[in-house]
Amino acid sequence: MKQEHCANTPPMGWNSYDYYDTTVNEEQVKANADYMAAHLKAFGWEYVVVDIEWYAYDAGSIRERYQYIPFWKVEMDAYGRLLPCPQRFPSAEGGKGFAPLADYVHALGLKFGIHIMRGIPREAAHRHLPVYGSSVKANEIADPSNICAWNPDMYGLNPACEGAQAYYDSLFALYAEWGVDFIKCDDICRMDMPSARAEIAMLHRAMARCGREMVLSLSPGPAKIEEAWYYAQHANMWRITDDFWDHWDSLKDMFDRCELWQRHVSPGCFPDCDMLPLGKIGKAFGNERDTGFTRTEQVTMMNLWCIFRAPLMVGAELTKLDDWTTGLLTNETLLKCVQNGGTPKLLCRDEESAVWMNEDSVDGSIYLALFNLGEQERRLFPEAAALLANGVSLMGKKMRSAWDGAYEAGKMRHDVSVVLPPHGSVFWVWR
Amino acid sequence: MKQEHCANTPPMGWNSYDYYDTTVNEEQVKANADYMAAHLKAFGWEYVVVDIEWYAYDAGSIRERYQYIPFWKVEMDAYGRLLPCPQRFPSAEGGKGFAPLADYVHALGLKFGIHIMRGIPREAAHRHLPVYGSSVKANEIADPSNICAWNPDMYGLNPACEGAQAYYDSLFALYAEWGVDFIKCDDICRMDMPSARAEIAMLHRAMARCGREMVLSLSPGPAKIEEAWYYAQHANMWRITDDFWDHWDSLKDMFDRCELWQRHVSPGCFPDCDMLPLGKIGKAFGNERDTGFTRTEQVTMMNLWCIFRAPLMVGAELTKLDDWTTGLLTNETLLKCVQNGGTPKLLCRDEESAVWMNEDSVDGSIYLALFNLGEQERRLFPEAAALLANGVSLMGKKMRSAWDGAYEAGKMRHDVSVVLPPHGSVFWVWR
Amino acid sequence: MKQEHCANTPPMGWNSYDYYDTTVNEEQVKANADYMAAHLKAFGWEYVVVDIEWYAYDAGSIRERYQYIPFWKVEMDAYGRLLPCPQRFPSAEGGKGFAPLADYVHALGLKFGIHIMRGIPREAAHRHLPVYGSSVKANEIADPSNICAWNPDMYGLNPACEGAQAYYDSLFALYAEWGVDFIKCDDICRMDMPSARAEIAMLHRAMARCGREMVLSLSPGPAKIEEAWYYAQHANMWRITDDFWDHWDSLKDMFDRCELWQRHVSPGCFPDCDMLPLGKIGKAFGNERDTGFTRTEQVTMMNLWCIFRAPLMVGAELTKLDDWTTGLLTNETLLKCVQNGGTPKLLCRDEESAVWMNEDSVDGSIYLALFNLGEQERRLFPEAAALLANGVSLMGKKMRSAWDGAYEAGKMRHDVSVVLPPHGSVFWVWR
Amino acid sequence: MKQEHCANTPPMGWNSYDYYDTTVNEEQVKANADYMAAHLKAFGWEYVVVDIEWYAYDAGSIRERYQYIPFWKVEMDAYGRLLPCPQRFPSAEGGKGFAPLADYVHALGLKFGIHIMRGIPREAAHRHLPVYGSSVKANEIADPSNICAWNPDMYGLNPACEGAQAYYDSLFALYAEWGVDFIKCDDICRMDMPSARAEIAMLHRAMARCGREMVLSLSPGPAKIEEAWYYAQHANMWRITDDFWDHWDSLKDMFDRCELWQRHVSPGCFPDCDMLPLGKIGKAFGNERDTGFTRTEQVTMMNLWCIFRAPLMVGAELTKLDDWTTGLLTNETLLKCVQNGGTPKLLCRDEESAVWMNEDSVDGSIYLALFNLGEQERRLFPEAAALLANGVSLMGKKMRSAWDGAYEAGKMRHDVSVVLPPHGSVFWVWR
Repeated sequence: MKQEHCANTPPMGWNSYDYYDTTVNEEQVKANADYMAAHLKAFGWEYVVVDIEWYAYDAGSIRERYQYIPFWKVEMDAYGRLLPCPQRFPSAEGGKGFAPLADYVHALGLKFGIHIMRGIPREAAHRHLPVYGSSVKANEIADPSNICAWNPDMYGLNPACEGAQAYYDSLFALYAEWGVDFIKCDDICRMDMPSARAEIAMLHRAMARCGREMVLSLSPGPAKIEEAWYYAQHANMWRITDDFWDHWDSLKDMFDRCELWQRHVSPGCFPDCDMLPLGKIGKAFGNERDTGFTRTEQVTMMNLWCIFRAPLMVGAELTKLDDWTTGLLTNETLLKCVQNGGTPKLLCRDEESAVWMNEDSVDGSIYLALFNLGEQERRLFPEAAALLANGVSLMGKKMRSAWDGAYEAGKMRHDVSVVLPPHGSVFWVWR
Repeated sequence: MKQEHCANTPPMGWNSYDYYDTTVNEEQVKANADYMAAHLKAFGWEYVVVDIEWYAYDAGSIRERYQYIPFWKVEMDAYGRLLPCPQRFPSAEGGKGFAPLADYVHALGLKFGIHIMRGIPREAAHRHLPVYGSSVKANEIADPSNICAWNPDMYGLNPACEGAQAYYDSLFALYAEWGVDFIKCDDICRMDMPSARAEIAMLHRAMARCGREMVLSLSPGPAKIEEAWYYAQHANMWRITDDFWDHWDSLKDMFDRCELWQRHVSPGCFPDCDMLPLGKIGKAFGNERDTGFTRTEQVTMMNLWCIFRAPLMVGAELTKLDDWTTGLLTNETLLKCVQNGGTPKLLCRDEESAVWMNEDSVDGSIYLALFNLGEQERRLFPEAAALLANGVSLMGKKMRSAWDGAYEAGKMRHDVSVVLPPHGSVFWVWR
Repeated sequence: MKQEHCANTPPMGWNSYDYYDTTVNEEQVKANADYMAAHLKAFGWEYVVVDIEWYAYDAGSIRERYQYIPFWKVEMDAYGRLLPCPQRFPSAEGGKGFAPLADYVHALGLKFGIHIMRGIPREAAHRHLPVYGSSVKANEIADPSNICAWNPDMYGLNPACEGAQAYYDSLFALYAEWGVDFIKCDDICRMDMPSARAEIAMLHRAMARCGREMVLSLSPGPAKIEEAWYYAQHANMWRITDDFWDHWDSLKDMFDRCELWQRHVSPGCFPDCDMLPLGKIGKAFGNERDTGFTRTEQVTMMNLWCIFRAPLMVGAELTKLDDWTTGLLTNETLLKCVQNGGTPKLLCRDEESAVWMNEDSVDGSIYLALFNLGEQERRLFPEAAALLANGVSLMGKKMRSAWDGAYEAGKMRHDVSVVLPPHGSVFWVWR
Repeated sequence: MKQEHCANTPPMGWNSYDYYDTTVNEEQVKANADYMAAHLKAFGWEYVVVDIEWYAYDAGSIRERYQYIPFWKVEMDAYGRLLPCPQRFPSAEGGKGFAPLADYVHALGLKFGIHIMRGIPREAAHRHLPVYGSSVKANEIADPSNICAWNPDMYGLNPACEGAQAYYDSLFALYAEWGVDFIKCDDICRMDMPSARAEIAMLHRAMARCGREMVLSLSPGPAKIEEAWYYAQHANMWRITDDFWDHWDSLKDMFDRCELWQRHVSPGCFPDCDMLPLGKIGKAFGNERDTGFTRTEQVTMMNLWCIFRAPLMVGAELTKLDDWTTGLLTNETLLKCVQNGGTPKLLCRDEESAVWMNEDSVDGSIYLALFNLGEQERRLFPEAAALLANGVSLMGKKMRSAWDGAYEAGKMRHDVSVVLPPHGSVFWVWR
């Protein structure tokens, strides 16, 4: 069973990947944490997450050829546990790991998260390193044919081997010592290797044993809908898409995925639409840019993520946020839906539009989001009949738009319909 | 949108298929309806459903060769609408259709249902019959390459043809005239033909237009989980398995299907585990028999269907029910869960066991069903931790078993665990 | 076993489909036969083939909606055997079938062929027509779930039914009476239905029993390479592609298919690349046109078909052939390769080029065809090493190009290489 | 292009795998070579092949857990080229590799072969070893995601990397120095990785450049029939099955595979049915045994391999051959068919029987093999009609059985048919 009070609402935070790829360093993490504490914390933002390859030397240095340099030097302890690369995380020197950085984040009133790849470093297996707390060696638990298709760092574990669980236990014990609050485990959510279920169970068990409350986030997607119950038993978030970037096609596609997963949103369990590629992104990918989404599309993305109550992880470099983007992240109505809402409901859907609702479990407000997914202007209605079929009436309630004029794309009409431009949407609250 | 008050709880009734195959006649339907009115109605049983090929002449007469005799005579009106075969339904003579039989069933305080195949009779297309209420002919709306893989009676409709909707409208208008309360539409739920979504939408639209409240049940399964939202928008029941018969492997497999579909149980929407093959079954299949399930397995089946809140459709010849089987169908605790329960929750699961819960929306009782799916005796517990994670505590509540000694397989223990034999289960209520 | 002397060389002829679709009539067939006798027969062309739906009334009359009008009137005898529609084939009146037309063709010194769909007319099954020479009826041998995906006329036969073979026997007996020399059976070559092997065997057996020598051609492709031996045992030609039309992509793709099937060319057995869409084509498809291939591509097509020794069936309306196209069909060197060649050999291949050879079994000449499949000019060589590896030396032989300047695209060089334009080719003979 | 005179007839020899698994040593190889020279060489047997993991330390020492110990010590030179493990091949000490052993074999008048895994040792990549004759390092050409599913030793090469070809060139240069005559390259024939075609081309190019004539054998199967031409261009043998062992089902299945590949048997190109698991086998697999085939089945296997002209590689420990088995390997008629035959032809086939022919290219003898694949005694005939269709007549020829009474299973009849027991066969020669 999962920890009871963990992630009762969708986790909200910042993740280093969209801007820094594999290259983020201590100073940059701190700067983003500082910014979050100063400007976003008051709105519920709290996780600061260091994404992939914080243990790798020279990460990003041959970027035109490799995203992940194969067979390269990694920082590792004598038990085959990866440590922060001191090139980039000087405070980790002397075996202190992420503890100093986690302390820094905690001191700001925030929480600290890290990314891991499932399995054990290939280097540990080839060097026959001992597994902490067991009598086995890395080469005995690593499965030489169980690899990641896109990252060369690890071997998957053979769950049938004595000592495989011990290795994961040793990892989480270390992370608990460091003060980690959030683990994003990668190369596992798609369950495309035979050991998938067993590896997820080992992670979950190790986390339960580590004595520290942590959120478990599984990546990358798409998750398998057939395994929905299994994810919910073992994790707090699971990616329902492959990596999400700033292209309309991917955003439009997310409406299908949210349709599929809507009934699986519940306390402690949040299907994950991936990071919000807003603001400045792409720098270490060699393409620093403002998000490719139009303003209309950015609002549409926020409306979908919030009515669906997806985890909110910003991909932007926070220190470069402009006021308009900050506004996107601090809308009180949308964040109230994220915090107080329940299971989202798709009310109607066709190729060109979607209408979603959610209900505030505290004050009973009804949130409605109407989306024009087509390439033509289109008028949409609040779907009173579908609401009624869900036991909800808008009769006697007052309607308000969550966004003011600076963000709004649609033209509201007195008869409570809205004319939306292509890719546009509105977010209404009725009370 | 679906009709608002239809099937707020799982439909319960009798279906002719498991005993009569294609051969049931008017007298037999009446006898089963009489029995239901006299012995089961008080417990909530209400639908009397005539299954496949009520329109076919000589049905079952060459059973060693055909389940459905191809290219054979069917009873049909001038608009290509199938009528009850007067060989078996004498009251249908003179174009009265099922109206007299429906009247009979209604007079008993019960409801009347029929099975249909999607599409239009092949014979109607080959004879170029006109479509009622339109200017087109059957050959224009029938799609010659859209057939059923296992039944030779119909062609699927081409949804792009003007007149296709008119044909379905004409069908449902007729059924409304007859007084039909329940339609089980076959060859559609698996959505394995390109026209599937469109045909379901046409059925739903025709039903909405017919002016009579009816339950729409889709068959056969397995339904596609990716289309869960679509089924819920258009139908009240959809089969989550292929035809279910009295073999343990199929029953064990149903635990996987219920895991998959659990979050989709809601008022008006009931994933369908197919008929209960209890009592006497199989006669017109050439194998009249008592159900092949052991008593222990029969209780396990009832426990699963009821904790999951599947529709309950008995396959037995009702007039031959013995007392023990009648007891299975009239357990007040299980039926209270079916009537008052909510969305079922699987609490824990492995290859050999499952624990399910449901909660009474009226009095807050907690229903728990524990299942031993293995081949060894096994002790199971009520999974307090998993309940807590679902916001439920058993502290201070009193536990009672739903079944008395005649039905119970497990040995209860004072410390609230139970030792269950292979295939055995218990159904507990806590209040 | 197949008939011994049938199709020892690749069949050559004309087929009505590419120009007339389903609409060809007696006069048009005769006009094409006349032309063939006058201008092409001397070069080895001999088959005149009437393609699909010669039995259908009103064929082509609702072409914007249907290629094949479903559930429409067909000409049929009392035994469910299709007859030529007298609307289009007046000489067939009075039950004479194709005998008068076959006589006409034979009188010109040519051979006569027809297209059939596998199976039995749907109408025959629905009308319960008797099967000639047996005690069964059409409805007993027709399989209601065994249909063609694209043509609505027939049901496949159930090979397990007594009488299925009798039906095919009755067909071929009729065709033998008519004087048919060539049968192109459709909806069978892809073997995508369970009865495929059995239906092919039934056709083959019926042909063997009919007492007349006929070529058996199977359509449409792509044929399954796994069944290569089975095709060779039962048929003379089998389509290795889906329908082939006048687009470069399809022509380029044929190089892959020829690579795959090259070792299966042998006396009596010719993998079939489909008709040559040359000259005027497309009329009854609503798009009468000159072939969409450039002259360079037309030569390339001829070079491939002839070096590979594919059956040669012209799709053009013969009476409209221009001199240049006639030249394509009457090249003595290419046709000598078709008549005297052996098993073709691909000597080398990459994405942009191919070199093929064949050897004359009479005089030992070596045929070489070099193809530039790319979009850039490219120089190609005769691949002496690959020839040597196949036991062939060009040393001391004299080279000649099969085409004169009017057809040639490549620039020959004194060092025996050739510079070919995009899509261009040469055909050389060494002796 | 392949080397011209290499493997003009099917290679015949001994392979260490079936008896020794990964464990064979120098003394054992020599003992088998000695035996071959003394008893089999006169019949055409010539290759002595050392199979998998001759470079591995401790091979077979943890056999209950691993066939191939992962992450273990291998013998390797400074350029990442594997060398014979001196634990087992003492003559290889001092960097002499297999040269002394090859010399020994050559001195017996035999040829020497080795097995390799495609790719480069994982250890070489992790240690960044330089690639001989190039400026790149192993880590630059190894593809970390291109692995073998069943053996942990290697990484596949990235064909796009400069230096990948150089590595293969360096390998074959070494093997040429040693005097290797035969390379069996593993993990490549199924072509189930994207680099397959490119890796085969690199092997072929390296072999062409090495200056020594070698046979190239690709493993494991099943090979892809779609790539038949590609195999024939690059290799001499390619496995058409997965590993073949001594079970009737596998032997029966080989008749399907031979049907599929029959037209691809030609000089230099031999579809490979894998080793002959005869005599004593299985020792290092922990199951030393006499072959599981009955004597009747052993003869059937020999008859199929020889009429098909598959490469003949004995799996038995030669020094333990009994007379009867030696007789199987030294039948002059069968070996004459292997040496002088041409492309085999399947004459007829059903689920229960097969008749194959081959023709002697030197003296025109006709070889016929008749097989009863069923579980009932059955009479078979020489299929004169099918022979005729292949241009062969038995008229006036004299028939002789290849086997004498000690090996024969069938009862010959005066009318030239044979009654064969289940799994039985005859091999006839007509001249």
